[in-house]
Amino acid sequence: MKEKIGFIGIGTMGKPMSLNLIKAEYPLVVYDINLKTMEELKERGATIGKSAREVASQTDVIITMVPNSSDVEKVILGENGVSEGARSKSVVVDMSTIDPSVSRKVARALAAKNVKMLDAPVSGGQMGAIAASLAIMVGGDEDVFEKCLPIFQAMGKKIVYCGPNGNGEIVKIMNNLLAGINMIATAEAMTLGVKAGVNLKVLYDAINASSGQNWAMQNYCAAKAFKGDFEPGFMAALMYKDLGLAMNLAKEEGIPLLIGGLGHQIYSNVVASGLGVKDSSIPVKILENLGNVKLRL
Amino acid sequence: MKEKIGFIGIGTMGKPMSLNLIKAEYPLVVYDINLKTMEELKERGATIGKSAREVASQTDVIITMVPNSSDVEKVILGENGVSEGARSKSVVVDMSTIDPSVSRKVARALAAKNVKMLDAPVSGGQMGAIAASLAIMVGGDEDVFEKCLPIFQAMGKKIVYCGPNGNGEIVKIMNNLLAGINMIATAEAMTLGVKAGVNLKVLYDAINASSGQNWAMQNYCAAKAFKGDFEPGFMAALMYKDLGLAMNLAKEEGIPLLIGGLGHQIYSNVVASGLGVKDSSIPVKILENLGNVKLRL
Amino acid sequence: MKEKIGFIGIGTMGKPMSLNLIKAEYPLVVYDINLKTMEELKERGATIGKSAREVASQTDVIITMVPNSSDVEKVILGENGVSEGARSKSVVVDMSTIDPSVSRKVARALAAKNVKMLDAPVSGGQMGAIAASLAIMVGGDEDVFEKCLPIFQAMGKKIVYCGPNGNGEIVKIMNNLLAGINMIATAEAMTLGVKAGVNLKVLYDAINASSGQNWAMQNYCAAKAFKGDFEPGFMAALMYKDLGLAMNLAKEEGIPLLIGGLGHQIYSNVVASGLGVKDSSIPVKILENLGNVKLRL
Amino acid sequence: MKEKIGFIGIGTMGKPMSLNLIKAEYPLVVYDINLKTMEELKERGATIGKSAREVASQTDVIITMVPNSSDVEKVILGENGVSEGARSKSVVVDMSTIDPSVSRKVARALAAKNVKMLDAPVSGGQMGAIAASLAIMVGGDEDVFEKCLPIFQAMGKKIVYCGPNGNGEIVKIMNNLLAGINMIATAEAMTLGVKAGVNLKVLYDAINASSGQNWAMQNYCAAKAFKGDFEPGFMAALMYKDLGLAMNLAKEEGIPLLIGGLGHQIYSNVVASGLGVKDSSIPVKILENLGNVKLRL
Repeated sequence: MKEKIGFIGIGTMGKPMSLNLIKAEYPLVVYDINLKTMEELKERGATIGKSAREVASQTDVIITMVPNSSDVEKVILGENGVSEGARSKSVVVDMSTIDPSVSRKVARALAAKNVKMLDAPVSGGQMGAIAASLAIMVGGDEDVFEKCLPIFQAMGKKIVYCGPNGNGEIVKIMNNLLAGINMIATAEAMTLGVKAGVNLKVLYDAINASSGQNWAMQNYCAAKAFKGDFEPGFMAALMYKDLGLAMNLAKEEGIPLLIGGLGHQIYSNVVASGLGVKDSSIPVKILENLGNVKLRL
Repeated sequence: MKEKIGFIGIGTMGKPMSLNLIKAEYPLVVYDINLKTMEELKERGATIGKSAREVASQTDVIITMVPNSSDVEKVILGENGVSEGARSKSVVVDMSTIDPSVSRKVARALAAKNVKMLDAPVSGGQMGAIAASLAIMVGGDEDVFEKCLPIFQAMGKKIVYCGPNGNGEIVKIMNNLLAGINMIATAEAMTLGVKAGVNLKVLYDAINASSGQNWAMQNYCAAKAFKGDFEPGFMAALMYKDLGLAMNLAKEEGIPLLIGGLGHQIYSNVVASGLGVKDSSIPVKILENLGNVKLRL
Repeated sequence: MKEKIGFIGIGTMGKPMSLNLIKAEYPLVVYDINLKTMEELKERGATIGKSAREVASQTDVIITMVPNSSDVEKVILGENGVSEGARSKSVVVDMSTIDPSVSRKVARALAAKNVKMLDAPVSGGQMGAIAASLAIMVGGDEDVFEKCLPIFQAMGKKIVYCGPNGNGEIVKIMNNLLAGINMIATAEAMTLGVKAGVNLKVLYDAINASSGQNWAMQNYCAAKAFKGDFEPGFMAALMYKDLGLAMNLAKEEGIPLLIGGLGHQIYSNVVASGLGVKDSSIPVKILENLGNVKLRL
Repeated sequence: MKEKIGFIGIGTMGKPMSLNLIKAEYPLVVYDINLKTMEELKERGATIGKSAREVASQTDVIITMVPNSSDVEKVILGENGVSEGARSKSVVVDMSTIDPSVSRKVARALAAKNVKMLDAPVSGGQMGAIAASLAIMVGGDEDVFEKCLPIFQAMGKKIVYCGPNGNGEIVKIMNNLLAGINMIATAEAMTLGVKAGVNLKVLYDAINASSGQNWAMQNYCAAKAFKGDFEPGFMAALMYKDLGLAMNLAKEEGIPLLIGGLGHQIYSNVVASGLGVKDSSIPVKILENLGNVKLRL
């Protein structure tokens, strides 16, 4: 029989993810501060919980999907939180993107209550959440990962086991660090090339076939920025957040990130300029404006 | 009948390239300041020229392959240079990697003598030159490009026409700008991820299947740096040179390159540290040392 | 009659500062995890406390001088901490350099117990602490500041009132952000100038009389780095810490710091290279080595 | 008797400087492409020359004051240039701010004709030029410097001898490198401090009395940016040019400038944004806007 799942945090991402769990016929108890969304999910077959604690007390697997590190700490370790209610041998799966060190700390606190934890941040955005095609990077004990794999498969497509607790977060953050740098670097190189007189299509084709190739340009910018579309797939404010997590980790581990640190501040500039709600490829638009050119495929 | 080709600059790259032209049965006249290399090529079937001018005076297509912008100016426009000797309707093909603005200036000067020019910088390093598998990015008139295509095919595999004069240089430089940034960004992200506890193979596989993917990491670092090999394929000093050309172009075109400019200075630091003779993936080694970890696939 | 003072954290800085309070005839109760230092202070006239709580329970003004934000939270708000023991209307003076937001949070928690707080970070290093010549930047209520002024005057010379709680920290951190950037910028400019053939004295005199003048170069580097002395006055690791506090604040306030962020990562590089124990002017030495020159006045 | 002086380049700076020479009773021959300005100077007592060459042929000291390196090369070494006309033992004084390497190359070319050269770039802007209060940094032979000192004193106040040819340029450029970095760093630190709740006056006074003090903040920003005045004293576009000269020199000398390079690109961004015509303290305004605060003393 399928595990009973608790789902805490049913916002932009959590809502479609929980709907996919219902579709896969998992018994679901949801909790959020937003009553309206809970009512919507009730109509689709979920049970409504009274608190994170109460949800945890009646489910086998408790998924959390909240904005940031302090939210995770609060909803799991705080008053009326998951930890107070969770049953021995239940599993907490935090799918938020947060500081690996916080994730590890929460895992240790839960372990003391005989509750296992996985960190399982996702990528793919709301579209991926709706289509159940998310990439999910998972940290924690491998046997717990194996046990939860069907649950992940109900929500995503590319499920990667990354090692012990915290490693899911680390892999996701390092990936986004590279993606963010590539958004900016692509914006710089392509704007300069076009400004200097090369057709974007020529530049794009030549570089994609050579050593400058990168996913952010080849797939992401091609689908959005190079079509003049800067409405969010993955919001610039979220890229800024993820680069911030990379910088936190860098500080903890004592690794200098010269390029990463500058990328973080460039996205800070984007957000301070009021462009955080735009797509993470917005540096293309900013450079287009500075160079008075258009990058269109 | 095949065009008679002049080849000026038969060093690390030019020598294997000219050997491939001989193999393809082009009549070849070579010129270099290094007498010994000329003798070697003579033994392989080339004729030895007396000066750039004299080579130009007896050939249909004159290829130049020299270190930098001022060398190109000197060898083509200088005293006893190609321009003084070149016959009307002959073609000059500069395969050096230089400032696009210098390339365009030289093209204009030659046009005044009814000599056409192509800029055709290559990538692929000495290995690619030997294997006749270079990528060649070509700027200039399209009919001249078409005419010279068989010559390029004798030396390379991926031949891309990029538009008017200078555009071959621009495409190459923008490509290497992205490649250089990716070398550094990859070194930063992978070192941090490994230091924080993730296995390099896990990190590498996960990122290659996601939005952080880039050629520099996936192919280049995998083949060299992540095997502990920092002997030059493409030297760090050459990456520094190419980022310098990108910065020159950025200044001419008025495009700010925040990330590009920092990447340029990071490679300047590499060269000042005496590591310019190492491979362009040397930032991996530098970060490994700072983090006291090893990145090995 | 003079207030009875508690002093928690009698390390490199706290010890000479507390000795100056004894010299000024303040009754003093000290507490530290280091028993030996407590014994030394006992011999000089201090009383030894049993815990932060116990010290607070018997003193009018409780000074804390500990390494970082989490230490301050722990020693004031933690178990057996100052907050548990502090008497109504007593004053807590935190002289540590920490996150302004943590300082403000602690101040709010103490206010709920009718205890006032000042943040009063210092600059001047161990030398300034011994000589009672510290600069002290103070945040909190102005009347509390006035009341504590004689205490500050026993430890320092330049006492500046900066406004409400947290403002002392902010002023110190912004000052050190500028000082840190100037250390690096001075190292870069002076190394380049000397490498290009100008005598350091000529460069130094000319710039000090012009728009490039800055304290870090004129006074600090002149006294240490430009005499070849890189033993710590103010350690590079502390500069790194302070720039980290600036970056934290920048994130909280949403202000991008392009130059500041790069400066932070450059000091991270210094620390990762094992040079954190050297003086904060160590970038001069690093650039000297890269340029193979000596900067000596 | 006073030397007969030629003055080539009578624009924003050159015009008031030449007027001060007339005031000091030097016989003056002027040359510019702008006929109208020449007419104005004629009315004030100058003679009008027909070309740079012709001016040089009839004067003892030839001053050049033109926008950039290539202008200097052209006006001195080019066709109908100073070099063609200059008499043996005359002195060329180039007061433009240009690449030191170009300055040295021109000096060598003139030396071959037995003409001495000084590089003597100025700072102080148009106001300083009008008031004859310029700072002048001079490179070249010391005896030639001594001989020209009265001429410099007619145009400026702070005259500094910096060593052999090119050193005047180097000192000026290194000074402006530091000034430019300080403009940006000051904008960042002060905006963040004010945004975080500190009064600008408090911040300014405290930092000026401490290790973050720098001329750009204390004197320049106080007089302009912190009064809301961003009309050019020293234009941002000129700061961008001078940082570009610093980066050129860094490349020639092999010294990496991480902070300098970023500063250069930040000013490139300023210029690309159309703000090059504003004052060099415009980063203050940019940060004010991002932070939605005002920095006013």
